Amino acid sequence: MRILLIGASGTIGKRIYDALSPKHEVVRGGRSGADVEVDITDNLSIEDMYHAVGDIDAVICAAGPAKFGPFSEMSEDDMYVGIRGKMMGQVNLVRIGQKYLNDGGSFTLTTGILADEPVPGSVGVSLVNGAVNSFVVAAAQELPRGQRINVVSPTVVADSAEMYADFFPGFDPVSMDRVVNGYVKSVMGRMTGKIIRVI
Amino acid sequence: MRILLIGASGTIGKRIYDALSPKHEVVRGGRSGADVEVDITDNLSIEDMYHAVGDIDAVICAAGPAKFGPFSEMSEDDMYVGIRGKMMGQVNLVRIGQKYLNDGGSFTLTTGILADEPVPGSVGVSLVNGAVNSFVVAAAQELPRGQRINVVSPTVVADSAEMYADFFPGFDPVSMDRVVNGYVKSVMGRMTGKIIRVI
Repeated sequence: MRILLIGASGTIGKRIYDALSPKHEVVRGGRSGADVEVDITDNLSIEDMYHAVGDIDAVICAAGPAKFGPFSEMSEDDMYVGIRGKMMGQVNLVRIGQKYLNDGGSFTLTTGILADEPVPGSVGVSLVNGAVNSFVVAAAQELPRGQRINVVSPTVVADSAEMYADFFPGFDPVSMDRVVNGYVKSVMGRMTGKIIRVI
Repeated sequence: MRILLIGASGTIGKRIYDALSPKHEVVRGGRSGADVEVDITDNLSIEDMYHAVGDIDAVICAAGPAKFGPFSEMSEDDMYVGIRGKMMGQVNLVRIGQKYLNDGGSFTLTTGILADEPVPGSVGVSLVNGAVNSFVVAAAQELPRGQRINVVSPTVVADSAEMYADFFPGFDPVSMDRVVNGYVKSVMGRMTGKIIRVI
């Protein structure tokens, strides 16, 4: 299988690469230093990436900026960091990518537990996570040529649990292996329209 | 109680007005012909509205544009009709309104069943409904001075069930009375951070 992995240099992206690359050709996409450069907030950059990469059976996105901050201090511009980034960046990977992805190929996006269980300061992130979750369920009904789409929504990952402990009090961390398995299940399975909650 | 009802001329807004106006002072907001004019896609217009209206115990929004259309044909601009309208219009009513709403006051927003059960052509609407649902759960944790926030998410309403039957095959319509009760429960009750699914 030929897999395009966007956000391959991130904490989760690296581990997805390690899990899939022994058996599959994984093309890494990212803002710099990747096999193919892409800025997912820029539709032309997304088009260029798909042209450059060619034949693809699966797209995984483990990238997307969004801004944390107290709701009382969030400006509209602060909100739009996530809207243009993690939300429309991922939507546009699918909206544009449906033309390029092979028959029966899959998209796997990323959200997170903050869609369902917010914490103080997460309003901007919760908003975009909830948006992408509902988007995926809806888009699954309309993708052409047997294409599939799912989203992995992890809680705090054990690898970074200490760093985030003050922001996620009492959240049970999950192992990175379980998070990576969410992506593997989406790519290798036959499910579509699923919010894969790794909690 | 002094209640600001935005979208008062709409199908649901009219019935909310009928239910609340006998016992409460309801100030109607809308793009034209209302007690106070407001364009919720324009932050300055929202600020002006709050200044003009003054003392307010509850804000209800039953308005917000969003665009239906086949996902394969949706442009980014099509998606942004809902993002700037039903999504950020409602978010900004709260983001800005938290400064103006009375202590213990409430916001009640509107989404819909398409966040959870999409239909073909609803991708743009499902996205914004899912976003606002998660936003409400998150914002409830951060609003100041005992302010509350909930969202009413109705399925197809009996009044318009015939008109929409082809788009919502097999969806059980609910009575308008039940939908209106969702808003009344949010405004008059003590709940916060709830997605009130009227299904």
